[in-house]
Amino acid sequence: MGKRLTNRKDDYSKWYNELVVKADLAENSSVRGCMVIKPYGFAIWEKMKSQLDKMFKDTGHQNAYFPLFVPKSLFEAEEKNAEGFAKECAVVTHYRLKNDQNNPGKLKVDEKAKLEEELIVRPTSEAIIWKTYKNWIQSYRDLPILINQWANVVRWEMRTRLFLRTSEFLWQEGHTAHETKQEALDEAMMINDIYGDFSENFMGIPVIKGSKSESEKFAGAEQTYCIEALMQDGKALQAGTSHFLGQNFARAFDVQFANKEGKLDYVWATSWGVSTRLMGALIMTHSDDNGLVLPPKLAPNQVVIIPIFKSDKELNLVLNYIKPLLNQLKKENISFLVDQRDSYKPGYKFNEYEIKGVPIRLVIGPKDVGNSSVEIFRRDKMEKETLGINEAKSKVLELIDDIQQNIYNKALNFRDNNIRAIDDYNEFKKIIKNNGGFVSAHWDGTQESEEKIKKETKATIRCIPFEDSPVKGKCIISGKPSKQRVLFAKAY
Amino acid sequence: MGKRLTNRKDDYSKWYNELVVKADLAENSSVRGCMVIKPYGFAIWEKMKSQLDKMFKDTGHQNAYFPLFVPKSLFEAEEKNAEGFAKECAVVTHYRLKNDQNNPGKLKVDEKAKLEEELIVRPTSEAIIWKTYKNWIQSYRDLPILINQWANVVRWEMRTRLFLRTSEFLWQEGHTAHETKQEALDEAMMINDIYGDFSENFMGIPVIKGSKSESEKFAGAEQTYCIEALMQDGKALQAGTSHFLGQNFARAFDVQFANKEGKLDYVWATSWGVSTRLMGALIMTHSDDNGLVLPPKLAPNQVVIIPIFKSDKELNLVLNYIKPLLNQLKKENISFLVDQRDSYKPGYKFNEYEIKGVPIRLVIGPKDVGNSSVEIFRRDKMEKETLGINEAKSKVLELIDDIQQNIYNKALNFRDNNIRAIDDYNEFKKIIKNNGGFVSAHWDGTQESEEKIKKETKATIRCIPFEDSPVKGKCIISGKPSKQRVLFAKAY
Repeated sequence: MGKRLTNRKDDYSKWYNELVVKADLAENSSVRGCMVIKPYGFAIWEKMKSQLDKMFKDTGHQNAYFPLFVPKSLFEAEEKNAEGFAKECAVVTHYRLKNDQNNPGKLKVDEKAKLEEELIVRPTSEAIIWKTYKNWIQSYRDLPILINQWANVVRWEMRTRLFLRTSEFLWQEGHTAHETKQEALDEAMMINDIYGDFSENFMGIPVIKGSKSESEKFAGAEQTYCIEALMQDGKALQAGTSHFLGQNFARAFDVQFANKEGKLDYVWATSWGVSTRLMGALIMTHSDDNGLVLPPKLAPNQVVIIPIFKSDKELNLVLNYIKPLLNQLKKENISFLVDQRDSYKPGYKFNEYEIKGVPIRLVIGPKDVGNSSVEIFRRDKMEKETLGINEAKSKVLELIDDIQQNIYNKALNFRDNNIRAIDDYNEFKKIIKNNGGFVSAHWDGTQESEEKIKKETKATIRCIPFEDSPVKGKCIISGKPSKQRVLFAKAY
Repeated sequence: MGKRLTNRKDDYSKWYNELVVKADLAENSSVRGCMVIKPYGFAIWEKMKSQLDKMFKDTGHQNAYFPLFVPKSLFEAEEKNAEGFAKECAVVTHYRLKNDQNNPGKLKVDEKAKLEEELIVRPTSEAIIWKTYKNWIQSYRDLPILINQWANVVRWEMRTRLFLRTSEFLWQEGHTAHETKQEALDEAMMINDIYGDFSENFMGIPVIKGSKSESEKFAGAEQTYCIEALMQDGKALQAGTSHFLGQNFARAFDVQFANKEGKLDYVWATSWGVSTRLMGALIMTHSDDNGLVLPPKLAPNQVVIIPIFKSDKELNLVLNYIKPLLNQLKKENISFLVDQRDSYKPGYKFNEYEIKGVPIRLVIGPKDVGNSSVEIFRRDKMEKETLGINEAKSKVLELIDDIQQNIYNKALNFRDNNIRAIDDYNEFKKIIKNNGGFVSAHWDGTQESEEKIKKETKATIRCIPFEDSPVKGKCIISGKPSKQRVLFAKAY
């Protein structure tokens, strides 16, 4: 696997970039800003997808598919949304290539095949979807519409990083339509809770739920709910957002429905999404200087089994010995891989699966066959022990739960140790600069104060946490009244 | 559900278009040539996807994801491939919009944000993938690479039809790399067999396996294998293709590997795909004048249960009565839907689920509660009977198998009755014109004869069937020697 990773403390950003490539998760492509998601990375994304998909379906949502392209005239219909994305749009202008007469074997754009109206490669699908919903919605009987789509989207980025910020990324986008404002608000909140549940209980990433400030919310939304996570370098990462869109898109696309009394009203909307960016959050939350650390619930292989052998005879001996164990693991639906390649040495394999974050490693050699033993290694703590082969299955089951819990707890401790309630602006600046993490501070609710803090510290309001009994105070920068503390941080 | 469908015999094409919309499968979007796949249609596609995905994984393939865009210079590297797709390419030329000063609230393309090199929206991904594989392959140890991707692709079409021919469609594309020619040939053949297996045993569509003629094969392939199906109107439909690419892409992208002897050689390749076009095949093979007919293995709901009630009391009576049955169905992993909407009458619901092709319908009213009975209806034969509630579960299980088998047999009979071995060219022309179906005829293997037949009859060579002992003969148009009969038909 080549030389070791850069250490996190030496260069966190370099560590991340190296890790993504060395763990075989993704790499940059020949297309500026677009990545190739490699099989191992994609297998993790598939696990995430399948769990989220289940959660959406369990709450009554259905999948559908809408076009990749949005005609410019539709795209600009909801002005705030259009303005928010205009600078990141890939634009299709032609629909044909032709032979380049001056360069045999080369092609060029056929100027005769210019589109009458340019097509935007979707940066998000509200426009095309609300144009479609208009035809689906006449009466309250047609509501609610609860639809999700798994798709690729394009937002042209100048500075890109694998998973965290790419010009093309994969995501899911939910788009729902409702009779009442309250129903739409409830939907947006429920989805934010699903995101939180998924993040904490599957990805093992603790998150803070809250809403975004005016300047940080989604272009075209009335309200954006979010889950915010904290990475090991003290920077925050927005892991998912759920938007209450009010009647903005319904007005832009004239989507009205007849309510039970026969009166016409505009439909209420939400949209919500998580993307392959979550892969970045997963990597940065748990991994260490030895490589990736994966939560067992999302690991493509929860267990790797490495037989030690010097001959085919020894290999067969070991394979026979572990056969009953493999059957037990299969019965328990534990995913595993037996690496019996003879072209690589055990040490190389150990290193490979450490860097790939396989949660549990079993090593079995001819001696173990004599001793009825097996060596078991847990990736999160880098600890190994030897135990009887008959205890192996229950130990694996125990470790799967324990590792899932342990990495969550570790991340939670780190996060909680890095939330600091601060009331003095000089200290605020010092903390943001030297410690990072979340700073919990009072804010007067104005864009002016928010902007000033951002300019002076690079910290933004990550979220206004949901609180049952918010405590009032004075804004850390203006001294004006504040309704509650909000969370500031530098962010990805 | 509005008025009835057009009959197939009156206007097959109109019947198809109406059915796709009325069964809630898909509709045209505001983007020329692009469709919206509605939740019901998408649920069928998801079932197809998940079965195919399992089959690919069971044979050692992994999923990955490659960029949507292909830089023009990569796209044109394999010349035949580029030439084959050049006329259908959507081209991204700009990456930003800006405010249109002359039209407040409107946007226009920012001419300053012109790409240095145009990006092609992938019509297929060989180019971008082989550019990537170049970095992954150095030695025989890196082979084989067995990768599949589920993605959207764009091929600009002037005349589009829902599912059958759309400018954007969803598909899977496998791209594999091998040490030897034989290994690549075997891979392409194995995948074609998987497509055949899936088509026959899941979609219930009988297919003929074979290879394509020179003029019908994939641009850039050495050999294209395919599965060909026959629709009820006598036109053929290519349901899947698997290509042996030789070393064409390896040469175009200079992908060489060191073999076991340390000698460099170009890598051997395959690619293969099926698309949302399969939805069109599914619809056209089984459906009738009453609407869709779905194979139970792919139906989103295998059973719909319609309680008959005039009051909440009656509804509760019925729901209590069927509770044990529902539990039994759940245990057997049978997917079902209980439609207890009170805003629609039973007759409306019957019609709705007939048009949506739900394989089995159970109707239960208060009288059934007294009689311990239930009415069961099978969509394929439009037959109903009344039986005891205790027999219901086993009857449902029996019908699920029987319907799957029955619609396959029906399609197989139709197909077999519509393959005609013809040796006289005048008769050939008559059959193609009046009867349709496959005509099995001798062909001399030249493009000239093929072209002439196509021009005169609109029939093309759908495939050169795989045959263990091919029988020689004389070409139907030239009289020259022929190695075996091939299948001609007009095609979608």
